[in-house]
Amino acid sequence: MPTLHSAESVDQADVTINDEFWNSWLETNREVTLEYQYDHLETSGCLENFRRAAAGDSGGFRGMWFADSDAYKWLEAASYVLASRDDPDLSRRVDAVIDLVAAAQDDDGYLNTYFVLEEPEKRWTNLNMMHELYCAGHLIEAAVAHHRATGDRELLEVATRFADHVESIFGDEIAGVPGHQEIELALVKLARATDEDRYVDLARYFVDLRGHDDRLEREFERIEEIAGYDPETGGIAAGARDAFYEDGAYDGRYAQAHAPLLEQTSVEGHAVRAMYFFAGAADVAAETGDAELLAHLERLWETVTERRTYVTGGIGSSAAGERFTEDYDLPNDTAYAETCAAIGSIFWSQRLFELTGNARYADLIEWTLYNAVLVGMSRDGTEFFYDNRLESDGDHHREGWFECACCPPNVARLLASLEEYLYATGRDDADDPRLYVNQYVSSAATVNVAGTDVDVVQTAGLPWDGEVTLEVDAATPTEFGVSLRIPSWCPDVTVRINDREHALEGDVEGHPGTWNADYVTVTREWDDDRLEIRFEQSVVPVRAHPAVEADAGRIALTRGPLVYCLEGVDNDRPLHQYRLEPELNADARYREDLLGGTVVLEGATSAPALEGWDDDLYLPAAETNRVSASFTAIPHFQWDNREPGEMAVWLHDG
Amino acid sequence: MPTLHSAESVDQADVTINDEFWNSWLETNREVTLEYQYDHLETSGCLENFRRAAAGDSGGFRGMWFADSDAYKWLEAASYVLASRDDPDLSRRVDAVIDLVAAAQDDDGYLNTYFVLEEPEKRWTNLNMMHELYCAGHLIEAAVAHHRATGDRELLEVATRFADHVESIFGDEIAGVPGHQEIELALVKLARATDEDRYVDLARYFVDLRGHDDRLEREFERIEEIAGYDPETGGIAAGARDAFYEDGAYDGRYAQAHAPLLEQTSVEGHAVRAMYFFAGAADVAAETGDAELLAHLERLWETVTERRTYVTGGIGSSAAGERFTEDYDLPNDTAYAETCAAIGSIFWSQRLFELTGNARYADLIEWTLYNAVLVGMSRDGTEFFYDNRLESDGDHHREGWFECACCPPNVARLLASLEEYLYATGRDDADDPRLYVNQYVSSAATVNVAGTDVDVVQTAGLPWDGEVTLEVDAATPTEFGVSLRIPSWCPDVTVRINDREHALEGDVEGHPGTWNADYVTVTREWDDDRLEIRFEQSVVPVRAHPAVEADAGRIALTRGPLVYCLEGVDNDRPLHQYRLEPELNADARYREDLLGGTVVLEGATSAPALEGWDDDLYLPAAETNRVSASFTAIPHFQWDNREPGEMAVWLHDG
Repeated sequence: MPTLHSAESVDQADVTINDEFWNSWLETNREVTLEYQYDHLETSGCLENFRRAAAGDSGGFRGMWFADSDAYKWLEAASYVLASRDDPDLSRRVDAVIDLVAAAQDDDGYLNTYFVLEEPEKRWTNLNMMHELYCAGHLIEAAVAHHRATGDRELLEVATRFADHVESIFGDEIAGVPGHQEIELALVKLARATDEDRYVDLARYFVDLRGHDDRLEREFERIEEIAGYDPETGGIAAGARDAFYEDGAYDGRYAQAHAPLLEQTSVEGHAVRAMYFFAGAADVAAETGDAELLAHLERLWETVTERRTYVTGGIGSSAAGERFTEDYDLPNDTAYAETCAAIGSIFWSQRLFELTGNARYADLIEWTLYNAVLVGMSRDGTEFFYDNRLESDGDHHREGWFECACCPPNVARLLASLEEYLYATGRDDADDPRLYVNQYVSSAATVNVAGTDVDVVQTAGLPWDGEVTLEVDAATPTEFGVSLRIPSWCPDVTVRINDREHALEGDVEGHPGTWNADYVTVTREWDDDRLEIRFEQSVVPVRAHPAVEADAGRIALTRGPLVYCLEGVDNDRPLHQYRLEPELNADARYREDLLGGTVVLEGATSAPALEGWDDDLYLPAAETNRVSASFTAIPHFQWDNREPGEMAVWLHDG
Repeated sequence: MPTLHSAESVDQADVTINDEFWNSWLETNREVTLEYQYDHLETSGCLENFRRAAAGDSGGFRGMWFADSDAYKWLEAASYVLASRDDPDLSRRVDAVIDLVAAAQDDDGYLNTYFVLEEPEKRWTNLNMMHELYCAGHLIEAAVAHHRATGDRELLEVATRFADHVESIFGDEIAGVPGHQEIELALVKLARATDEDRYVDLARYFVDLRGHDDRLEREFERIEEIAGYDPETGGIAAGARDAFYEDGAYDGRYAQAHAPLLEQTSVEGHAVRAMYFFAGAADVAAETGDAELLAHLERLWETVTERRTYVTGGIGSSAAGERFTEDYDLPNDTAYAETCAAIGSIFWSQRLFELTGNARYADLIEWTLYNAVLVGMSRDGTEFFYDNRLESDGDHHREGWFECACCPPNVARLLASLEEYLYATGRDDADDPRLYVNQYVSSAATVNVAGTDVDVVQTAGLPWDGEVTLEVDAATPTEFGVSLRIPSWCPDVTVRINDREHALEGDVEGHPGTWNADYVTVTREWDDDRLEIRFEQSVVPVRAHPAVEADAGRIALTRGPLVYCLEGVDNDRPLHQYRLEPELNADARYREDLLGGTVVLEGATSAPALEGWDDDLYLPAAETNRVSASFTAIPHFQWDNREPGEMAVWLHDG
């Protein structure tokens, strides 16, 4: 089988993070969030659904009809934790959940507690919305993660049996694709874990059929007979119909089913579905050597980043349908920018990086991670944003849980697998051996480059400062390249090797918000050497493209990889009154006392004078004045961790 | 009975408008709109409801449950037309409708075709929403107008019988107030037309009881038993409950029933209800000499104009509940600013002017008329805005009719009675005789001042230019004051008497948007004299108070009494890209060819450069540029009369 791989991410097992910034997030995730989420699996009835299904009960299903996936995402996250540390308590709990899952599986391999308990005769009748394949995908991802972490095969066998059952039905009994993609990327993981190419074939089947068949549309014609329909409320079916219908007619865009993938020229519909789809399609391209598909996915990525991405990296601007809308339609106060969509974007970018070795994908991952994912979780790890506004009047807050609880365990599994995003090695190792350094996170890794084991110890001050050192210790002196991602946000970078300045070739000046990063590759014989890199971090006000109406006349503040915002608690004035100069020079100051440590931006700017207005509501502009006003900005990901109040990323310009 | 009157508007019968600007509006109103609206009375079933009620039918009511009021408002508008000209065809049609209305009246005086046809046993059970008293008020207004115009008593007798029936029930059988105010001001009109003080007493009863009783609240407790409830849909009752409930509890603010009027410190709830209420309360204050009530109404007027009025004069910013929200909450793209609410504001201001002789009320009337009422009707008189946005992406358009057809006939009756707003005489005539000139509209009037008949011929170039001449011809030379309203929008005014400059006392510099106008009174012996007034009209960019978030960083253009806007059809760029300098100097140019004649503003300003963006969605602000861009603005009231497109009143500032 041909492959297109350019790079291979270094395994989580070979990387250990020990980072001043990230440690607290990862610890909170392990020690608080996973525990908290497990409690929700119990209290929400999710685990009880498995118990009842295993006991042969019927009825009494609790939660959303795809609640099984909450358990699977928790298992996946817990497995990543187990991959990097011994935790006997967690291990026992994981095993117990796996036993529950295994016991709920049907003899034929089918596994979905909603259908087993509620509508056993209606399996596979409502692919649009009932998410059986979506849940199967999360089961498979959990199984592969658990197997890789522990070597244990119990869950992998459950997943394999279910995958085999799916394989036996789809393309044969049923020609159809899932309403919510996820199984595609999972099947490729399963293929890699089991060395069974037929799972790639099944993934490819789902990717290729999408937009070619009309099953999703036909299902709506008989929606009242099929699974999950509540005739009293219209229930699931009515919601689905709204999402899939536009001006009274079926419109497959919601689930990217409006056209075959290769004919889709913009990214449409439900943002999480789109991201999981493209990630799965990238996996299929990788495994099948489909260069045309890869090139198409790269073009689609460009259409998103060039016209449909918030300055935070968030995507999907409309709450209605949790979806993409139009080019440049990026409202701030109603921004949806679902946390799960940002995570899906990271999955997609990671695969495109591996396929192409292009630094821009790793660059967007960094930006999205800091600005569109971390914001999704409170500092204490127990409250979550499902949708991420870029502006709030004070009414938008993280919540402890959601009826549709997709985001919290998705954050958990991403943080628990952060190690996988740091380093990669080149696939064309023989010709051009290299080590990619994608993310600047203090860590130790052991990698094999050009046939030699290399120990890497990274110390990084991000996101607060741009000082990075890399100690590279090769088992034997070996020539290879170390490819350092020069972040798009970095206006100036200096590299020293063993205390001597290393001249960089070409233009490495960054442009925040462009996500057009490059690698600087230092090729030499590495032995026991020290790289020191200084990424200049300055405060850079950015503007959005003139076509973005929501940001017209506005400026957002960035520094390093972070998007900043003003929060009411730090500022005297209503935020809409601050007028920021484009040439603004704000001071960045580290404050250990604030928000667990943060760099705030403090600036002097202007605001409308309140004097002179008396009781007038309008005045001739010539009679109004400005006065000086100072502001304090904090990183956007840290907002809503103190008293409730206004927040704005985009501020009026001067 | 004491009176508080300071001024008395000159009767419509004594004023004839002949104005280049207004003639076309008034002709269209007479010749197209009234005809078009009559057709709707037929096709909507409104007249058929009266026919069926008269015939003793039951069931089959069509339209909104208060559809009777559409016929009454049409009758009122038609009567105003008949007051100023002979129109035998219209007269016959009016008489025929009056016969229909009279025939539908019950023997006891009750008159409401919804209840007669649908739920005869449920009269007066749902005062909140069923609008029987509201319809009664419009019947009375129509009757008074028709009687004044023609001397005919048929409709006046119908109205009187109904009023007597209401009087016999309210305060006796039922203690309650209308859910939608209107009857209060109508009863005072009836009292004046019939010299029956008891109608003032009944109006006062409704004004005084409001907020003191809990009947509206108690009605909701038994909403399922009472009139107009549709148990299948929740129907009227469910809608009413939404409007009257806040956070699950009854909240009378929707209908200004949350507190006694004298304890209300802000204007809350449904904007039309509020305006009709305060107009009626002002009438009660006038007739009862209640100086405390008048002072309170003046303060309430200030709270609206100082904090809750759009720059157009429109009021009521929320579509949900058609209501006022919070101070300074004036969103543009979702502005409700209902046409009827603007008309109600004019009614209220007119009464406050008559009570106080304060020019600010006449000033707001002028501004509201041009900018918040005229915009409600298309140039051809057949399409209407119910809600008036100050910004549109191109999806907001006038419509031919509405299920709730309150606005079109309200515009018609206001335009048909425009004569009543032009001139007034002082009530304290003996001490300080004066003629108020409130609106600058070319016209001829005969008024009695200081016991002398005075002919006034006014020639005015408004809104396009500020040249006004007044020929004052007293039957015998008589000393009195001519009080000229110096509009708040006028930065500079010169007055000449018989070709000689007349020095004005004090500061007469205006401030657009403040509605703080003053009178300049020229007191002399008038014989056959000529006043020439020149109100300087310059382009004045205005800003909103810093607390108005929607207008932060924005400027609106005004010239003379007009608010301007940019419309897509005249401008190359998306409107959000224009950046207007506060010191902007735009040229005003009369264009006869455009929109039936208009003054456009043409200016040179700047907009973001599109070059340099390549495929980037964000860029450092320092790397972005501006280029020059020219714009064309038209008066806001004329928008949406050409091809559909964007519109914005508030533009980003420089």
